[in-house]
Amino acid sequence: MAKVAVIMGSTSDLPVMQDAIDVLKELGIEVTVDIVSAHRTPEKMYDFGKNAHKNGISVIIAGAGGAAHLPGMVASLSPLPVIGVPVKSSNSIDGWDSVLSILQMPGGVPVATVALNGAKNAGILAAQIIGSADLSVQNNIVAYKESLKEKVIKGAEEIKK
Amino acid sequence: MAKVAVIMGSTSDLPVMQDAIDVLKELGIEVTVDIVSAHRTPEKMYDFGKNAHKNGISVIIAGAGGAAHLPGMVASLSPLPVIGVPVKSSNSIDGWDSVLSILQMPGGVPVATVALNGAKNAGILAAQIIGSADLSVQNNIVAYKESLKEKVIKGAEEIKK
Amino acid sequence: MAKVAVIMGSTSDLPVMQDAIDVLKELGIEVTVDIVSAHRTPEKMYDFGKNAHKNGISVIIAGAGGAAHLPGMVASLSPLPVIGVPVKSSNSIDGWDSVLSILQMPGGVPVATVALNGAKNAGILAAQIIGSADLSVQNNIVAYKESLKEKVIKGAEEIKK
Amino acid sequence: MAKVAVIMGSTSDLPVMQDAIDVLKELGIEVTVDIVSAHRTPEKMYDFGKNAHKNGISVIIAGAGGAAHLPGMVASLSPLPVIGVPVKSSNSIDGWDSVLSILQMPGGVPVATVALNGAKNAGILAAQIIGSADLSVQNNIVAYKESLKEKVIKGAEEIKK
Amino acid sequence: MAKVAVIMGSTSDLPVMQDAIDVLKELGIEVTVDIVSAHRTPEKMYDFGKNAHKNGISVIIAGAGGAAHLPGMVASLSPLPVIGVPVKSSNSIDGWDSVLSILQMPGGVPVATVALNGAKNAGILAAQIIGSADLSVQNNIVAYKESLKEKVIKGAEEIKK
Amino acid sequence: MAKVAVIMGSTSDLPVMQDAIDVLKELGIEVTVDIVSAHRTPEKMYDFGKNAHKNGISVIIAGAGGAAHLPGMVASLSPLPVIGVPVKSSNSIDGWDSVLSILQMPGGVPVATVALNGAKNAGILAAQIIGSADLSVQNNIVAYKESLKEKVIKGAEEIKK
Amino acid sequence: MAKVAVIMGSTSDLPVMQDAIDVLKELGIEVTVDIVSAHRTPEKMYDFGKNAHKNGISVIIAGAGGAAHLPGMVASLSPLPVIGVPVKSSNSIDGWDSVLSILQMPGGVPVATVALNGAKNAGILAAQIIGSADLSVQNNIVAYKESLKEKVIKGAEEIKK
Amino acid sequence: MAKVAVIMGSTSDLPVMQDAIDVLKELGIEVTVDIVSAHRTPEKMYDFGKNAHKNGISVIIAGAGGAAHLPGMVASLSPLPVIGVPVKSSNSIDGWDSVLSILQMPGGVPVATVALNGAKNAGILAAQIIGSADLSVQNNIVAYKESLKEKVIKGAEEIKK
Repeated sequence: MAKVAVIMGSTSDLPVMQDAIDVLKELGIEVTVDIVSAHRTPEKMYDFGKNAHKNGISVIIAGAGGAAHLPGMVASLSPLPVIGVPVKSSNSIDGWDSVLSILQMPGGVPVATVALNGAKNAGILAAQIIGSADLSVQNNIVAYKESLKEKVIKGAEEIKK
Repeated sequence: MAKVAVIMGSTSDLPVMQDAIDVLKELGIEVTVDIVSAHRTPEKMYDFGKNAHKNGISVIIAGAGGAAHLPGMVASLSPLPVIGVPVKSSNSIDGWDSVLSILQMPGGVPVATVALNGAKNAGILAAQIIGSADLSVQNNIVAYKESLKEKVIKGAEEIKK
Repeated sequence: MAKVAVIMGSTSDLPVMQDAIDVLKELGIEVTVDIVSAHRTPEKMYDFGKNAHKNGISVIIAGAGGAAHLPGMVASLSPLPVIGVPVKSSNSIDGWDSVLSILQMPGGVPVATVALNGAKNAGILAAQIIGSADLSVQNNIVAYKESLKEKVIKGAEEIKK
Repeated sequence: MAKVAVIMGSTSDLPVMQDAIDVLKELGIEVTVDIVSAHRTPEKMYDFGKNAHKNGISVIIAGAGGAAHLPGMVASLSPLPVIGVPVKSSNSIDGWDSVLSILQMPGGVPVATVALNGAKNAGILAAQIIGSADLSVQNNIVAYKESLKEKVIKGAEEIKK
Repeated sequence: MAKVAVIMGSTSDLPVMQDAIDVLKELGIEVTVDIVSAHRTPEKMYDFGKNAHKNGISVIIAGAGGAAHLPGMVASLSPLPVIGVPVKSSNSIDGWDSVLSILQMPGGVPVATVALNGAKNAGILAAQIIGSADLSVQNNIVAYKESLKEKVIKGAEEIKK
Repeated sequence: MAKVAVIMGSTSDLPVMQDAIDVLKELGIEVTVDIVSAHRTPEKMYDFGKNAHKNGISVIIAGAGGAAHLPGMVASLSPLPVIGVPVKSSNSIDGWDSVLSILQMPGGVPVATVALNGAKNAGILAAQIIGSADLSVQNNIVAYKESLKEKVIKGAEEIKK
Repeated sequence: MAKVAVIMGSTSDLPVMQDAIDVLKELGIEVTVDIVSAHRTPEKMYDFGKNAHKNGISVIIAGAGGAAHLPGMVASLSPLPVIGVPVKSSNSIDGWDSVLSILQMPGGVPVATVALNGAKNAGILAAQIIGSADLSVQNNIVAYKESLKEKVIKGAEEIKK
Repeated sequence: MAKVAVIMGSTSDLPVMQDAIDVLKELGIEVTVDIVSAHRTPEKMYDFGKNAHKNGISVIIAGAGGAAHLPGMVASLSPLPVIGVPVKSSNSIDGWDSVLSILQMPGGVPVATVALNGAKNAGILAAQIIGSADLSVQNNIVAYKESLKEKVIKGAEEIKK
C-alpha cells in the first residue's frame, strides 16, 4: 500500500510537522518520519532522495524553515512528488524566507508548496495524490471534506443563537 | 489512463499555461484544456470541480492571476489533487497577489502551489503525481530528469572552451 | 428597510467581525449574521450569493483570512455591493495574504476592501451605502462623524492640561 | 437620478481613471469628472467634500497615486460612500504606497478600496451601490455580469478548436 | 524665539510622540502640543495648517499611524517645514502603511520623514532646523552629539572589562 | 545668505538629483554641488561633514542608492539638518534598499527623508527650512505653492471641455 | 596568529553578537570585542577601519540594526574581509532595514552578509576565512561540521522511538 | 597559490557572474569556472563541494537565481568560505527569492551573501579573503580601492565645470 514519508530539517520543526502525520493517520495512510537535514546531513539526504521511490514511498512531505533547501533538494533527487512545508522558524523574516526558497523552484524541479506552517494541508494533499489512483483513499477524502462542512454548519447554528 | 485537466481563468493566461500542456504531452500524459473563471463563470467552475474526478481526471492544474481564486475554489469542490499556478498578470502587485491568494489556503483545503508563472513545473508535478502509482510514467520522469542533467553538463563543457 | 448581511468564513473570525455588527446596530441598520465558508461550504456560499438580493439584503459584508476567497466569490455571484474585510488570521504572512486576495480582484468583479481587521469601517461603509439613497441613514452618519470629532477635541483638551 | 463624481489628483491619472467613467456610462449612470488635489488644492477639496452630497452626488470615486491622501480626506469630509482607486504612479514603490495609504484608513472613516489601477471596478462598484436601492440599475449589473460570462464561454470555445 | 508644534492624530499616539517633546525641551526649544486629526477634525487641521507660521511656529512635527494623512495634509497647507513621524499603530501592516503614506509625497509638497516611531529624531531634526539659523541652538546640537559619543565610549569600556 | 549643499554618491545619481538643484535656483537659493561617496571617498565625506556648517552651508541634501549610507553618515558628522534622497539605482531591490537605509536611522541622528527619487521635494524642503527663519524665502514658498494650485485648476478646466 | 575583531554599534547588540564570540572561541580563534558606532563615534570607526589590518586583525565582524551603516562603512575603510550581521532592533521594520542596508552595498565595497541575527554564522564564516589559509583551523571546521551532523542523527534516532 | 572557484547553476547566469571572473583576474587571482546545478546535477555538486578544498580551491563563489540552493548546499558540503551571489532571474519575485534563499542560512552553515547581481563584489570579497593571509593580494586590494576613489574625485571635478 502507498506510504508517505514525512521528513524535516530539525527536531524543532516537529511541532509544526506533527499535523501532517496526524491527518495522514486519520485518513488511513501509512507514514514514516525522519529527520533529514539538507545542510547538516547532506549524505543522508542524498541517500533518502535517491532511494525513497525504491523503498515503497509514494509521496514525500518535507518541512524546513529559513533558507529552506530540503524540499527542493529532495525534489531534485527523487522522481516522486515532493510537498514542501515552509516552517516559520525563529529569526525568520516573517516566514518570507522559507516560503520563497521552497516555492520558487526553477523549471524542471517542482515542489508542491503549501501555506506557511501548513503541515496539515500537506498531509491532506499527500492523501489526495494517493487517492487520485486509489478510490478507497479518495472516498476518505470525500468523507473528510464532508466533516469540515458539518463543522462550519454547526458553527453557523451556534452563532444564530 | 490517467488524464490531467489544465484550466485557467482567462484566455490571456494561455501563453503562460501552455508550458504545462507542452510538458505533459512530452511526458506522454493525456491533457484536457478549458477556460473556467471563478469570478465570471462560477456555475461552470462549480460543475467542473464537482465532477472532474467522475470524468476520468486524475489531477487538476489551475492557473490564475491577481486575487486568484480559481485554484482554491476548485480544490474546495474536488477530492482530486489541485496544482495552482500563480500567473503574473498586468496590474499585479509584482505577482505577490496571485502567489499569496493561491498558496495561503486554510487548513483542510490544500492547493499544491508552484512558482510564479511556473506552469512547466505544474505539468511535471502532475506527471509525478500520476507516476507515483504508475511506474511507466515514473520512468518517463526519471528519463526527463536525466535529460536536464545532460543539458547542464553540455553547458559546463561549452563554458570551459 | 435596507438590511446588511455580515458573513465570515469561520467562527474564529467573529471577534474581529463583531465590530461591524455593533456599529451597524449603533447606526440603526438591521443586520443578519452567518458563517459561510468559501472552501468548506461552497454550496451554501453559492446559494447565499445568488439569492441575497432577493432576500432583502442591500449590502454584503464578508470577512475572511489567509487566502481569503469568500468576499470575491460572493461578489462574483451577487449584483449587490460586497465589502471585504481582510482578517489577520494565525499563520497569516503579516496579513498581506488576506489583504491581497480580497483587494486585487480582476476587472468586472469589484470588492470594496477596507483595512486589515477593519470590520468597524466595513459597517460604517455599509451604512454610507444605504445612506446614499436614504437621507435618514445619511443623517445618522453625519451625526456619527460629529461624535468622532468631539472625542478628538476632548482628547486635545485633556492633553493641554 | 443618482450621480457619481469621479475625481483625481492630477490630469496624469486620467488614463487610468477613464475606465471608471466609461463603465459608468455603459451602465447608464450619470458621471461628473473633476481634478481635485488634496495637496495642491486643499480648499477645493474641502469644498468638494463638504458639499458633494448636497449637489446630487450619491457616490464619490477618487483616484490618486503615491502617498495618496485624496480618497481618505474626501471620506473624512463627506457622508457619502467613497471608493478609492490606488493609481500606480511613476516613482511609486511598486504601487504599495498608494494601496496602503488608501486602504489602511483608521476606524470611523472608511474608504472602499479597489485593486491597483482598478478604476473599472470602481465604476462597477459605484453602480452596484446605486443599484442596491434602484432595481433598474441592479438589473443593468446583472446583465453586465451575464455579458462577462459569455465572453469567457466564447474564449473557452475558441481554445477548444 | 523659534517654537515647534508637535501634533498627532490621536491621544493614543502620545506615548510615541512624547519622545519628541522631551528631546526638544532638553535642547532648550519651546514646544506646543495638540491633537489634530486629519480624518476626524479636518477643519481644525485646516486652520492649524493655514495659520501655524503666523502664530510663531517655525517647525511642525506631525505623527500619525496607518493611512497617515496628517503630516502630508499639513504640509500642503503650510509653508513651514513639516516633519512626519510614522507611528506603528495596532492593526498596522507592520508599519509599512504609515511609513509609505507619509514618505511618498508627490512633487511639490515634501514631508521630512523620520524612522518608524522615530519621534525622538523628529525632535532633534526640528532643533537642527532651528539651529541652521540660530547658532546657540546649533551649539546645543553639537553638545548633544558629544554626549551620545560619550555614552558609546563608556559602553565600550564596560564591555572590555 | 543661506546656502544649500547638494551632494551625491556618484555622477550616475545626477539625473535624479538635478531636480533639487533646479528647484532651489527657481526659489532663489544658492546651491553648491559635489560628488562625495561614503564608500569610495570616506575621508572627503568626513571633511565635508565636519566642516559644512563652518563653510556657510545651512542645509545638506544627500542622495544615494542601494545600501545608501551617505545621508546618515553626513548626518552623524554635521550639526546641520540633512535631507536624504533615496535614489532607485540599477540592481536596487525596487528601491526598498535605499529607502530603508536612509529612513531608519537610530535615535540621535535623524535624516529628513523624502520620497524615492524625490529630489525636487528635497529642494523645496531645504527652502522651507531656510524660510522658517527668513521671511523672504518663506514668501517664495507661498508663491510656489500658489503656482502649483493654478496648474491643477488649469488642468481641471481642460478636463471639463 | 589570525585574530577576529567583533564590533557592534551599541551594547544593546551584545546579546545577539555574543554568539559570534562564543563560536570563535569554541573553534580556537582569538577574538577582540569593541563598541564602535558609525553614527555616534564616526572618528573611532574611522581609526578602527583604517588600522585594523595593521593591528593583527584578519577578519572583521560588524553587527548593527536599523539603518545599519557600520559594516559597510568599515568595509569602505579596510582592505580586510568584513562580515555584516543584520541585528533585528526594536522599531525595526521586521528586520528588512538592517538586512538591506548591509547587503545591498555598491560595486567595489563588499560586505559578507549573514542571516538576520545570524552572529553564530558570522563567527563560523570568519573561522572558514582563516581556515582557507590555515589547515589547522580548517580541520576544526571539518570537526565542527561533523558534530552538527551527529546532533541531527541523534535527533533522528529519538524521533523514531 | 590561492585559487577561486566560480560556479553557477546555469549558463544563463554567466552574464551576471562574469563580473566576478573579471575582477578576480584584474586583482591577479587565479579563477576556475564551472556550471554546477544543485537541482539538475546534484551528484556533480556533491563531488564539487566535498573536494574543492582538496583541489587547491581557497574560496568558492556560487551564483544562482529563484529558489537558489547552490550556495547553501555547497556551503554544507565544504569547509571553505562560500560567497553567494543572488541572481535576479526571469520570473523571480523582484529578486527577493534568490536573496532570501541564499542569505537566511540556518546556524552552522554560513553563506557570505552579497548584493543582488553583485558578482563584482563577490570577486572582490574573495580577493579580500585571500588577502587576509597574503599581503601581496591585500596590497592589490588597497590599490584597487585607491583607484575607486580617484574615479569619484574625477567625477566630482567634471561636475564642477
